[in-house]
Amino acid sequence: MSEQIVRAIQDDYPDDFAWCHGCGRLNESGYHFRTGWQGDETITIYKPSDATLHSGGIPGYVYGGFIASFIDCHGTGSASLALHRKNGFEPGSGEEPPRFVTASLQVQYRKPTPQGVELKAVGKVEEIHPKRFKVYTEVYADNELCATGEVEAVVMPKTFGQN
Amino acid sequence: MSEQIVRAIQDDYPDDFAWCHGCGRLNESGYHFRTGWQGDETITIYKPSDATLHSGGIPGYVYGGFIASFIDCHGTGSASLALHRKNGFEPGSGEEPPRFVTASLQVQYRKPTPQGVELKAVGKVEEIHPKRFKVYTEVYADNELCATGEVEAVVMPKTFGQN
Repeated sequence: MSEQIVRAIQDDYPDDFAWCHGCGRLNESGYHFRTGWQGDETITIYKPSDATLHSGGIPGYVYGGFIASFIDCHGTGSASLALHRKNGFEPGSGEEPPRFVTASLQVQYRKPTPQGVELKAVGKVEEIHPKRFKVYTEVYADNELCATGEVEAVVMPKTFGQN
Repeated sequence: MSEQIVRAIQDDYPDDFAWCHGCGRLNESGYHFRTGWQGDETITIYKPSDATLHSGGIPGYVYGGFIASFIDCHGTGSASLALHRKNGFEPGSGEEPPRFVTASLQVQYRKPTPQGVELKAVGKVEEIHPKRFKVYTEVYADNELCATGEVEAVVMPKTFGQN
């Protein structure tokens, strides 16, 4: 695939909230997932490591926990994109985007996900409350649907991380 | 906590199926989750790294994707324990246990999970079909309930990994 995400919401997260192992740009050992708009859908693209780092029980397949992580961060990123757009902003506009946390995560593993290919998460975002968004995600490996997921993401409480 | 799992089901997984990043004993870079019986419940104990490796968006909290991984592998391990026991065997008996894959995973994040403490997953297993088990899991950090989850695990198809 030659798709690229030029402007990702994670690029604009405030420094204090950019440490997530999945999508924090400041986490040196993390995955650095990046999520952007593609029309009215959100996308995240990532190629898992070929090594044992992302292996499932049998070499050659991607670890289910990695797929869950991918859907999780794609979900919170998508919710942030959606609320940011609702507020009149796009990634790269210079405005700080809202930061979400995951309230719940569901993953359906539809077929084993092969290693060695780029994965693409495609999301549809639904507002279910001004501070609560639901993100429906499909994960494709080489255009084959391998997993689907739902994330309920809520705006991070102001007290979070202040203890 | 001073609890230890003496006999874990993952110790007995066949070599060919012991590569999971979460619970594969042969995966050098993995977490090496180990799941055993505690009475009629299953438990997995693990202390996430203090480093950024398992960080959530804000340092000091555990990454939600890690919690999902923990619940995932605890679920498949618990299902394997349950079917193995149904077949008359316990970990360490010398019999090869059945290996499961995850059909679906649900996680509810109930409160931020602090880093620096041991996490304990406690599971209850329900057989919903001879080859399909549901595992209800609670994740505690220092005896505080931080997340709950459900895994539907199915016996790994014989064709899995033969392509």
